[in-house]
Amino acid sequence: MSAAPAVAALDWGTTRLRAWLLDGTGKVLAERRGDDGLITAREKGFATVLEGHLGAMGAPDTLPVIICGMAGSRQGWIEAPYVTVPAPIGAILRGAARVEGSSRDIRIVPGLAQRLTEAPDVMRGEETQLAGAGLPAKGRHLVCMPGTHSKWVAVADGTVEGFGTWPTGELFSVLATHSILKHSLGERPAPVSADSRFFRQWCERALGEGGDVTSKLFAIRAAGLLQDLQPDEAAAALSGLLIGGEIASARRRYGASEAPVALVASGALATLYGAALGFAGLAFRAVDADEAVRAGLVEAARENGMIGGAS
Amino acid sequence: MSAAPAVAALDWGTTRLRAWLLDGTGKVLAERRGDDGLITAREKGFATVLEGHLGAMGAPDTLPVIICGMAGSRQGWIEAPYVTVPAPIGAILRGAARVEGSSRDIRIVPGLAQRLTEAPDVMRGEETQLAGAGLPAKGRHLVCMPGTHSKWVAVADGTVEGFGTWPTGELFSVLATHSILKHSLGERPAPVSADSRFFRQWCERALGEGGDVTSKLFAIRAAGLLQDLQPDEAAAALSGLLIGGEIASARRRYGASEAPVALVASGALATLYGAALGFAGLAFRAVDADEAVRAGLVEAARENGMIGGAS
Repeated sequence: MSAAPAVAALDWGTTRLRAWLLDGTGKVLAERRGDDGLITAREKGFATVLEGHLGAMGAPDTLPVIICGMAGSRQGWIEAPYVTVPAPIGAILRGAARVEGSSRDIRIVPGLAQRLTEAPDVMRGEETQLAGAGLPAKGRHLVCMPGTHSKWVAVADGTVEGFGTWPTGELFSVLATHSILKHSLGERPAPVSADSRFFRQWCERALGEGGDVTSKLFAIRAAGLLQDLQPDEAAAALSGLLIGGEIASARRRYGASEAPVALVASGALATLYGAALGFAGLAFRAVDADEAVRAGLVEAARENGMIGGAS
Repeated sequence: MSAAPAVAALDWGTTRLRAWLLDGTGKVLAERRGDDGLITAREKGFATVLEGHLGAMGAPDTLPVIICGMAGSRQGWIEAPYVTVPAPIGAILRGAARVEGSSRDIRIVPGLAQRLTEAPDVMRGEETQLAGAGLPAKGRHLVCMPGTHSKWVAVADGTVEGFGTWPTGELFSVLATHSILKHSLGERPAPVSADSRFFRQWCERALGEGGDVTSKLFAIRAAGLLQDLQPDEAAAALSGLLIGGEIASARRRYGASEAPVALVASGALATLYGAALGFAGLAFRAVDADEAVRAGLVEAARENGMIGGAS
């Protein structure tokens, strides 16, 4: 016997969408993935896209829907205005914006804005992963969420104190495709392995430089000319350099945290960042990114009274 | 009355070429610029391209020719193998490789290789600018040669001790064109002015971060969203951030030099780097890049006995 869903939860990004039917504890009853992110949904209509996925999963007409991600941006369905940090995680979730004109209860979790003159920053979607990362209610915690635009978040006693963005994934892609390093990495470098000694070497070099990576980018090219560095090795070197640089820079900004870093990631990225945190001598607790976003969405639904109390 | 040329000098790069007829003191008697760099010359033939320019300048058939730049790379006319640093500048110039099979005396200045395991690096062309930068024979000097791939060189008592490459110009171009920052900078940002307060602000922020620029790239995007940073201002911010990061990183690597930094540059880049060195509190001596490469080529011709002794 299949349990009745308590809520539909969506992580609705710029190019992709993931949707789940969840019970009140966050258990997955159904799942859909689609390429109809914000860009597609702006053409087809957000409501149409949503109902298509809900219908395909057999969701009841009255099932409430909680959404996070770029669907809540100014270019999205409705704008869920940024919450300015510092802000308690519970208050952030309760700031969800309601989509009017639907018979369903549909709400979108707001993003976060850091309105510092010297370090302005924004996130949208990661705040929900953060809420589902299982952070202890007390103490100071550092959270690392790697990706195209990696986010590091400092949380103290359940309040987001500040955060930063390192565009590590985007830099890898842009440099591998459009810079002189394309000659070093070749057309299709193999996926980078955390076991590669080149990943480790270049990661450790970056860790020793406090986040300065630009001084070492051309060295990857030169290593091809002078040290016979091969394309797959150059890809591992670039990945290690950028990830090591991100970790060194974040550590410099946020200092050492007593608690292990919460590493919210999935798949290959989780392995690479786990290895790199190890090279940096930082203890970490691995949190699956998919589970975190679902747990955060359930928490958001609960904070907004869309489903029952504590599981 | 026009003086007789003593040597033809060419700065022969990947995409462009500059050629001069010079007298024995380095005075310019004729000049040509062309788009027939290495890429074009590989198709047309290097000798054909060279004789075309020499003929157009009315050079005598027996005039010796001294060349620097990518024409001496493995993909060039002949390879002028890298000289490994540390190396005295005079010895580098005397390593010029002779092009066989021509009735002229044609030589190409070698590039430099830094064969350090952790900091491999190469240059080709800048060694000649360096030789013509008018460095005192004694003492420790730091030379900054900004560009697509900026070079910083540490010289002590006329010997190149080491150097590094910061791909600042390339990063600006690649990020402005292919990263999320293209939305911040727009299609055609205005040329960056050293007087822009955004250039200064972001340069000073980078100078305070020891060369860590990746932590601040996304902040330029966020400043557009949160602080209404306009496209031309974002371009100035990115330029300031990258140039400031380069200077901070180079200063960290090479330490403070007692003598002013020799800034070998021309045009807008000379102005921007001059301003940025000022923000960093570093004294500098401006050297025109065009004059430096010509002076270096004359020096190379002299060191190789192609023209007479000291001017």
